[in-house]
Amino acid sequence: MKPVMVIGAGPAGLEAAAGLANLGRPVILVEQRDTLGGSPISSNYAGLTPDRRDAETAMNEMIGRVRGNKLIDVRAGCSVVAAQGDAPNITVTLKGAKGEQKVQAGAVIVATGFQHFDPGRETQMYGYYEYDDVITLVDAEKMLKAKNFVRPSNGQAPKQVCFIQCVGSRDRQIGNKWCSKVCCGIASQEAIEIRDLVPDCRVFIFYIDMRMYGFWEDQIYWKAQEEKKVNYIRGIVTEITKRGDQLVVKGEDTTMGRPMEVAMDMVILSVGMEPSEGTRSMAKIFNLPLEPHGWIDAVGAPLDAVSTVRPGFFVAGAAAGPADLSDSVSMGGAAAIKAAGFLWQRENSAA
Amino acid sequence: MKPVMVIGAGPAGLEAAAGLANLGRPVILVEQRDTLGGSPISSNYAGLTPDRRDAETAMNEMIGRVRGNKLIDVRAGCSVVAAQGDAPNITVTLKGAKGEQKVQAGAVIVATGFQHFDPGRETQMYGYYEYDDVITLVDAEKMLKAKNFVRPSNGQAPKQVCFIQCVGSRDRQIGNKWCSKVCCGIASQEAIEIRDLVPDCRVFIFYIDMRMYGFWEDQIYWKAQEEKKVNYIRGIVTEITKRGDQLVVKGEDTTMGRPMEVAMDMVILSVGMEPSEGTRSMAKIFNLPLEPHGWIDAVGAPLDAVSTVRPGFFVAGAAAGPADLSDSVSMGGAAAIKAAGFLWQRENSAA
Repeated sequence: MKPVMVIGAGPAGLEAAAGLANLGRPVILVEQRDTLGGSPISSNYAGLTPDRRDAETAMNEMIGRVRGNKLIDVRAGCSVVAAQGDAPNITVTLKGAKGEQKVQAGAVIVATGFQHFDPGRETQMYGYYEYDDVITLVDAEKMLKAKNFVRPSNGQAPKQVCFIQCVGSRDRQIGNKWCSKVCCGIASQEAIEIRDLVPDCRVFIFYIDMRMYGFWEDQIYWKAQEEKKVNYIRGIVTEITKRGDQLVVKGEDTTMGRPMEVAMDMVILSVGMEPSEGTRSMAKIFNLPLEPHGWIDAVGAPLDAVSTVRPGFFVAGAAAGPADLSDSVSMGGAAAIKAAGFLWQRENSAA
Repeated sequence: MKPVMVIGAGPAGLEAAAGLANLGRPVILVEQRDTLGGSPISSNYAGLTPDRRDAETAMNEMIGRVRGNKLIDVRAGCSVVAAQGDAPNITVTLKGAKGEQKVQAGAVIVATGFQHFDPGRETQMYGYYEYDDVITLVDAEKMLKAKNFVRPSNGQAPKQVCFIQCVGSRDRQIGNKWCSKVCCGIASQEAIEIRDLVPDCRVFIFYIDMRMYGFWEDQIYWKAQEEKKVNYIRGIVTEITKRGDQLVVKGEDTTMGRPMEVAMDMVILSVGMEPSEGTRSMAKIFNLPLEPHGWIDAVGAPLDAVSTVRPGFFVAGAAAGPADLSDSVSMGGAAAIKAAGFLWQRENSAA
């Protein structure tokens, strides 16, 4: 039986690999990093949103299903550098520590995910590279995981911190026209954890719209406001400067319709998602067209979020656009059954 | 090979059935209604969100894959009335036009979806049952499908209409604490279509937060505002009354911080999702616990959105909570590969 090549071992890729192997289908799971688990592991997530289950424990369970499976050939620390042929006769060149190797696959699932927007890259208004106490959601996650939430500038517990939403999202100027879907939930979860860890610290979230869909509404949003006293302020931040050892956040409170200027000990930038370098590179190598925002085009969406323009080539998770964990895992399964079905039809219809 | 029983022939169920059959797995697809296609067909959707592809055409393609498949036993106009046994030895009693029949299944996927909130049921403040010109998203969709968007009271084209968001969602008082996820997008799409169909008609959307995630941000939201001149007003509507032959919408404009009172020819209530009667009934018959909001509990979420507490019993689509079309279809595939894997392991591990 021909193997399916799954590229990327984050939530989507791990689910796809496990689902295929569970049906008896061999899988080659390729991961550029040395470690499996994708962003929740490489970005040091403390807990998963929305249940805040320990991220390492949860991802290790998914990884365990893959590592322990005889049908899954795990190639960590390994990149796809070239490909030729159409499904079900695809030849892929992998490059790892031991050099290059050509392998055969019947179908391909690209699950190479996203990367976080770099807030110092295209805008200087948030001072991410200038001020130690301006950090990102990812930096905050790492501190929360270590249960040591302090100001990078002086190691002291902060008394007042704020999140700024939509950094690198919903932004025509920098070219990221999409909503990254998860940052409202993640920021609110982090806000709850900061309040738990540093009870004296006041926490503010500056936002345009709070996008808390489904059960996130009461599980996260209401909880943050009502139980944890997180302050949500609908406003636009236009500049961050420094005064003494504090940061000054300037902008407009759009609910009150007045300018605002507030002092903060720390500012956390809610950076959004962009197609990862791996996603862009896989699109080129496998000739998969991008949709207008720059992600791999799922041509049948919304009724098929995983098929690409090329038969036998599928996309899953945040390689196709902003996705939360549930989206990614479900898309992993959806891509896997389509890949398995694609091969099963060819293997069983021949006389 | 034991069949998988898929209950509900909406987007999630159709995808699950087709995915399983494509792997050679027999399926019994049970649908309470006489027609397949789920809400997009039964609620007369004009177009699918976000691409506004004709809903009937798109759903007929999905239905065609199922109807034409020898491995899929389609039981339309048929209900599940009883069940016993654990997977993979489940006996289900079906009731159709010809009476009751017991059938065997190895696994079950519940894809029985949602129902729209009835805005006259628990609140009278919107006057849905009193005023002809107060309609819902679903009523509007039907008119848009017929390309005849007129005031129900007099058959005339409206000059001014508004949408009211979050009717039956984000509402502690009526007990629906969730965000229904899709209403912001659907209302905005309908607003665009009204502007296209009745160019003289001004369209307003009263909202709390515009929840337009992923590509909906620019594909729908920016387009509605910039190209189609839809007016978005952040506000809370507290009452709808009548003056002459017009409706009067009273509330507060929360951005301007002042009371508002505007005359409208029509008001469209953006009704949210609730667990359907079928979903609640399947939960009882199959002993599937509900999560705190009343939907079928997907116990492994966010890293597994389709497994229930019972091995071999899965949930897909809006039976597990508010879901858009992509969510539903991906969950259909994800549930299908888990069901197929569950049975494959049992059929192939035995000596």
